[in-house]
Amino acid sequence: MTCEIITIGDELLIGQVINTNQAFIAEQLNTVGVFTDRMTTVGDDAEQIKKSFVDAYALHDVVCVTGGLGPTHDDITKKIVAEFFQTDLIMNEQVLSDIKALAQKRNISLIQSNIDQALVPRTCTVIPNTNGTAPGMMFENDAKYFFVMPGVPFEMKAMIEEWIIPFFKNKSDGLIVRHRTLKTTGIGESMLAHEIGDIDSITGTDGKATLAFLPNPIGTKLRITVKDYNAENVERKISAIEKVLRTKAEKYIYSSDEKELEDVIGILLREKRLTVATAESCTGGLIANRITNVPGSSDYFLRGFITYSNQSKVDELGIPMQLIVQQGAVSKEVAEAMARGARGVSKTDIAISCTGIAGPTGGSLEKPVGLCYIRWNYFEENY
Amino acid sequence: MTCEIITIGDELLIGQVINTNQAFIAEQLNTVGVFTDRMTTVGDDAEQIKKSFVDAYALHDVVCVTGGLGPTHDDITKKIVAEFFQTDLIMNEQVLSDIKALAQKRNISLIQSNIDQALVPRTCTVIPNTNGTAPGMMFENDAKYFFVMPGVPFEMKAMIEEWIIPFFKNKSDGLIVRHRTLKTTGIGESMLAHEIGDIDSITGTDGKATLAFLPNPIGTKLRITVKDYNAENVERKISAIEKVLRTKAEKYIYSSDEKELEDVIGILLREKRLTVATAESCTGGLIANRITNVPGSSDYFLRGFITYSNQSKVDELGIPMQLIVQQGAVSKEVAEAMARGARGVSKTDIAISCTGIAGPTGGSLEKPVGLCYIRWNYFEENY
Repeated sequence: MTCEIITIGDELLIGQVINTNQAFIAEQLNTVGVFTDRMTTVGDDAEQIKKSFVDAYALHDVVCVTGGLGPTHDDITKKIVAEFFQTDLIMNEQVLSDIKALAQKRNISLIQSNIDQALVPRTCTVIPNTNGTAPGMMFENDAKYFFVMPGVPFEMKAMIEEWIIPFFKNKSDGLIVRHRTLKTTGIGESMLAHEIGDIDSITGTDGKATLAFLPNPIGTKLRITVKDYNAENVERKISAIEKVLRTKAEKYIYSSDEKELEDVIGILLREKRLTVATAESCTGGLIANRITNVPGSSDYFLRGFITYSNQSKVDELGIPMQLIVQQGAVSKEVAEAMARGARGVSKTDIAISCTGIAGPTGGSLEKPVGLCYIRWNYFEENY
Repeated sequence: MTCEIITIGDELLIGQVINTNQAFIAEQLNTVGVFTDRMTTVGDDAEQIKKSFVDAYALHDVVCVTGGLGPTHDDITKKIVAEFFQTDLIMNEQVLSDIKALAQKRNISLIQSNIDQALVPRTCTVIPNTNGTAPGMMFENDAKYFFVMPGVPFEMKAMIEEWIIPFFKNKSDGLIVRHRTLKTTGIGESMLAHEIGDIDSITGTDGKATLAFLPNPIGTKLRITVKDYNAENVERKISAIEKVLRTKAEKYIYSSDEKELEDVIGILLREKRLTVATAESCTGGLIANRITNVPGSSDYFLRGFITYSNQSKVDELGIPMQLIVQQGAVSKEVAEAMARGARGVSKTDIAISCTGIAGPTGGSLEKPVGLCYIRWNYFEENY
């Protein structure tokens, strides 16, 4: 099945808001065999919206619309949808009761515009909104599916995940699409491609499996996609490809699911019952912040130092001022002393340190902007 | 002038990449009186690309296309553009020499696919690529403008800023569009709207001025937009609106340009010659990280503590363990002691502290997830 995604809103057309809804919907539908062919964005303009509906419905099996379902005067999508499907709006008691319950829960009083949100096109199937007041809608005609959702991302996302994805799983002709992402770090995209070598010989050339390289500042993700009508075949094929990739690049792969680097580090530290401290200069707390973003990180992260000034390196980490003066605050020696000092003071098993020249100024020929030393110190007996 | 933005690429249609090019182009063109009416995204598919060109060129004065100009087999945009404008590709010596210069600078050897990037449609005007090898193109016919740019954001952005915006400034019929954004914090969107009151009486109703509320997690931006054919009128009107908004909400406004909260804090600290330290628990270094993201922040940020464990609060900040046991690590008293301790140890003029329950677990009825104490300590004689 092919799909067009239509996003509605003036804020998108003037570039005030980056459109994240499109990518989310496309990625989700992709997993149930609904492939997005086109994405269109139009403003809060009746003629433009109507035209986009006509074009999309003529060309695609599935149309997903977001935006323009709010309670204010510029939210005109619902009226246009009703016209497009030549129906009228009727009060839906279930939706009204949901809205009343939400208002009570949030302790706000209902005004007429809230109540009007329970008006829905007569011929639609309502998609409940578990995070807000505007109901979603589905129209199903001649094996074509037309969905309308609010533009608020977390309301839309819940409808996709809780209603639309299960709906298509049931409808599916049996084609199964699965992705697996191997996250790598410590190697550039082209070097990784070189290590992996010929891709056709890994995925095969029958079109059932593909491999995509997705570079980002932390590393490159390897995304395996397999399509087949047989679930066992899909699982076997995806695992076989993962195995080959691991033979070729195992030491760069830190995760084979959605886990981030800091999640994996947390799991390892907890498993090994190790604790960690940080001593940061140029990163100004970012390393500690990433580590502590993981729920439960207080089990292994005990403390961190942001030793920005030279004096703070002396006071907090016991680094001799002489070493800083001789080697410079940005030096291998000071980075090592920072890690050693942080572990000593914190009494953790491991400490990591970072000192560098973040720029834009402060660089020299010998120590240019971008130079950065990262060191660690650990209690060897634990290993 | 109205515009359609067409972005090309399979990675957009499967949701692997969030489309940021659209918003950037729309925002930039908006400042020179080119208003985006529609945005379309299609895959690396010749038929789809052709259809999108035909539709967009028929309906809009300006068409901006990005993507599909790279050197690999799935980059087909240039060929389709040449067909669309019924012309052929010719070698452009200037582009070829730019590509050679870039290759030399980056110390890479040229292969045939790089040289082929210097082939451009005969009837186009070349837009130089200052950040890469694929040239941009402009076709100008009957007061219609068709632009083609690479999809790589920083290559596209340079073309927009250095070539296309100046081009339209010269072409302009004289309509001037200016925005000014007042950034607020410490007040919710609806309360801010209430304080500001009737908007028509501030902007007028002649359509020349508008005010938009743009909420985000830090606060709400007030974006003033004024259009006029007279530069003085624009300046006078935008300043008059700013003045009224300041009368109504001065204490919530921290910036009237692109400066972030941490930039403004840095300017104030430097002006007043004050230094600052941080002591963080639940935020895990995020406050220090934000402060130190500002270039030159080492002038006023001296050090930071991430006292995650109770023992670290005792060791680093001199907080009595008894206080932590009695009041809890998340309490007003401990937050105050953290700020006091951080300032004492760091010998800064100001220290700020933060302790809270970030969740998802660790909350109780008395101290629920989300509870957070922020305190500061300062040397009163400095004020």
